[in-house]
Amino acid sequence: MSTVNPYEVEGAVDYERLVLEFGIKKLTEEDLKQIKELAGELHPQLRRGIFFAHRDLKWCLDEYKKGNKFFLYTGRGPSGPIHLGHVGTWRFVKWLQDVFDVDLWFQFTDDEKFLFKQDKSYEEIQDWTYENMLDVIALGFDPKKTHFLIDTKHAGIMYPEAIKVAKKITTSQVKGAFGFTDSNNIGSIFYTAMQTVPAFLPNVLRNENRPCLIPLGVDQDPHFRISRDVIEKLGHKKPAILHAKFMTPMTGGEGKQSTDKGGEGKDILLTDDPKTVKKKINKYAFSGGQDTVEEHRKLGGNPDIDVACQWMQYFEDDDEKLQEMYDKYRKGELLSGEVKAMLIDKINEFLAEHQKRRKEAENQIEDFLYKPE
Amino acid sequence: MSTVNPYEVEGAVDYERLVLEFGIKKLTEEDLKQIKELAGELHPQLRRGIFFAHRDLKWCLDEYKKGNKFFLYTGRGPSGPIHLGHVGTWRFVKWLQDVFDVDLWFQFTDDEKFLFKQDKSYEEIQDWTYENMLDVIALGFDPKKTHFLIDTKHAGIMYPEAIKVAKKITTSQVKGAFGFTDSNNIGSIFYTAMQTVPAFLPNVLRNENRPCLIPLGVDQDPHFRISRDVIEKLGHKKPAILHAKFMTPMTGGEGKQSTDKGGEGKDILLTDDPKTVKKKINKYAFSGGQDTVEEHRKLGGNPDIDVACQWMQYFEDDDEKLQEMYDKYRKGELLSGEVKAMLIDKINEFLAEHQKRRKEAENQIEDFLYKPE
Repeated sequence: MSTVNPYEVEGAVDYERLVLEFGIKKLTEEDLKQIKELAGELHPQLRRGIFFAHRDLKWCLDEYKKGNKFFLYTGRGPSGPIHLGHVGTWRFVKWLQDVFDVDLWFQFTDDEKFLFKQDKSYEEIQDWTYENMLDVIALGFDPKKTHFLIDTKHAGIMYPEAIKVAKKITTSQVKGAFGFTDSNNIGSIFYTAMQTVPAFLPNVLRNENRPCLIPLGVDQDPHFRISRDVIEKLGHKKPAILHAKFMTPMTGGEGKQSTDKGGEGKDILLTDDPKTVKKKINKYAFSGGQDTVEEHRKLGGNPDIDVACQWMQYFEDDDEKLQEMYDKYRKGELLSGEVKAMLIDKINEFLAEHQKRRKEAENQIEDFLYKPE
Repeated sequence: MSTVNPYEVEGAVDYERLVLEFGIKKLTEEDLKQIKELAGELHPQLRRGIFFAHRDLKWCLDEYKKGNKFFLYTGRGPSGPIHLGHVGTWRFVKWLQDVFDVDLWFQFTDDEKFLFKQDKSYEEIQDWTYENMLDVIALGFDPKKTHFLIDTKHAGIMYPEAIKVAKKITTSQVKGAFGFTDSNNIGSIFYTAMQTVPAFLPNVLRNENRPCLIPLGVDQDPHFRISRDVIEKLGHKKPAILHAKFMTPMTGGEGKQSTDKGGEGKDILLTDDPKTVKKKINKYAFSGGQDTVEEHRKLGGNPDIDVACQWMQYFEDDDEKLQEMYDKYRKGELLSGEVKAMLIDKINEFLAEHQKRRKEAENQIEDFLYKPE
C-alpha cells in the first residue's frame, strides 16, 4: 500500500488504484480525440499516458467549443530549487496555453511551504519564491496571459475568498484527506483554503464565469477533492482537473522524486551545468540494463524501468524515434551508457536554452505578477 | 463551574477563580498608584475594580516612564449592533489614549465573525463592520492616533504575519484554549493567529519596539494566553494586558450580556431612542428591591445585584454621588423605579451625544482606516 497526498508520497504508486480511490476518471481515446480536434495536435505527455486521468474535462472542452474559454491554474510550492521532475507538468501547461490561447494563473504557495517546513525561515522561502519565479518565466509562458499569485503578496485579494472556502471545510475533512493530526500547526490546517482560491478568483476579479482547468501532479488531487464541492456551494463552477503521473525518480522505482528527501544532490536542477548533468545521470540514473556489456548484448535491457529511457519521454517528442530507442534497448543493441548519453544531450540542450532565458527573466518578474486590473 | 473563553461564557463568573485559572494578576493598590502617578487621575473603572487584573502592566508603565510609549490594541467582532455592554471597555480605552497620549490600533475581526457565525453571510458581516465603525468613531477617539484594521481589508499586511504566528501554535493548543473540536471549520482553527497580529504589527510597520497594552474583556484572554509566548519567540515583546469584568447583564446575574443569545431585544443598543431605553430598562432591568413599596421602604434594596445600580458605575463618575445612591437604595430611601429613572436619564444623555456624533462619523471612516505610511 502506498500513501499519496500533497504532503506524503510513500511507496510504489499504483495509478489504477488511485483512480478508484480518488474517484477520478482515466483519460479515454475519446477524450484524447476531443483534445486533438480542438488543439490541432496531441502533446506527447497525452499520447504517452503521462497525463492519465481527469475530472470534468469533457465539460471544460465543451464550454471551450461553445466559445467560453477556460483559464489554466497550476502552481509551485517554493521551498527549494526546481528540478526536472517539476517542469514536465509546466511544459505541458505551456503547450495548453499556446494551443488553446488561454490565460494561466500560476500560484506560488509560499505560505504553505513556510508552514509545512519546520526548518525553513520566512526569508528563505521568499528567496526560493524569487528563484522559482525565474525558472517558471524561463519556460516561456506568455507574459500577457500569465498571472503570478504569491499567497503572501496577494493575501489582500486571496484571504477574503479563502475564509469563504474555509468556513465550509471541517478539521475532520483535512485530517482525513491529508493525514493531519492535532500536532499540525493551525496554519497548515487552514492552508488548503488558500490553494482553492485561484480556481475561482479570476472569475471574481474579472466578473466572468469561465471554467477553470487545473493540470497537476496526482498527489495534489486531495486539495480539490475536498474543495470542488465547496467551490460549487460558493456559486462557482467546479474546476476541471488533468492528473499527471510522477516522473520516475532518478534512482528508479515508482514513487515521486523530490528535492525534499532522499533526492538531495541527485536530482537534476534547472541551474545545473552540463558537466554536473552528465555526472549525475551517469552516476545515479537507475539502469534497466544487464550487469555486463556481454549479457546486455545477449539478453537486452528493460526500458520500462530504465530511468534514461523513461525520462526521454519528456525530451524526445518524436514517437517513432522514442520507440526505436526502446526497441533497440530491449534487444541489447543500445547500451545503458548510450541511452544515458542521449538523455544527457537532450537535457543539456534544454537547460542551455532555459538558463539563457532564466537570466532574462530577472527583468520580467513585474510583468508576470498579478496586479488588480 | 463556569466556562469563560472568547466563544463561550456560561454560568456565573467567578473572577477570583479566573485569576488563578488564567494565571493573571489582580490589580494591586500599588498598580493603581503607579497609573495615577503617570495619568494624573484614576478612571472610575479602575477605582471601582471593573478593570481588575492584568499581565505585565508594571513593565509597560515602567517603559512609558522611560519615554518608550506603549500603543493600545483592542477590537470588535462585528456580527451585530453595539450594545452598552461593549462600550464600557472602549470608553476606558479612550481615557487611556487621552491621558497617556498614545496610538490605538482597533481591530475589526470580520473574518472571525464570518467564520464563527454559521448563519451570517459575508455581506452581512461587512454591513455590521461598517455600522460598528460608526459607533467606535462616535466614542471620540483621536483620528490622528487611531488606526482601524479590518482583517479582510488589511489581510495584505496581516496574513503574512499571521502565518508566522500560526506556525508556532498547534491544533491541540487551540482545542484546549477555546473548546474547539474536529467539527470546527478550518478557518476558525486558524483565526487566533489573526487576532495576535495587531499586538506587534505596529512595530513591524513602523520599525519600532514599543510595548503593546491590550485592554479587553477577560473572556478574550485565552487568545493571548496562547500567543504571548509565540509573540516573544518571533522576536517581539509580550503584550501587556488589562482585564475587565463583564457589565452585569440586563436581566441580572453574573454572566456576560450578549446580543448573540438570550439578550435579543433586551440589551440597550447605541441606536436606541430615549423611549426605547426607558421601556427596556423599566421592563427588563433586574431589580434588587423588594416586591412592594412598603417592604422596600422597610427592608431596603440590594444595590449589588440591582442592575440599575450596577450600571450606574459606568455612567456616574462621581464616587460620592454613586455611594450616596447605593446607601439610599440599601436603606429603602430610593425605590427601584427611582434608580431606574436616574439610570435612564444618564444613558439617554450619553446616547443623545453619541448618536449626534455617529451621524458625523459617516464622513470620518477614511480617516480612521489604516493606510500604509
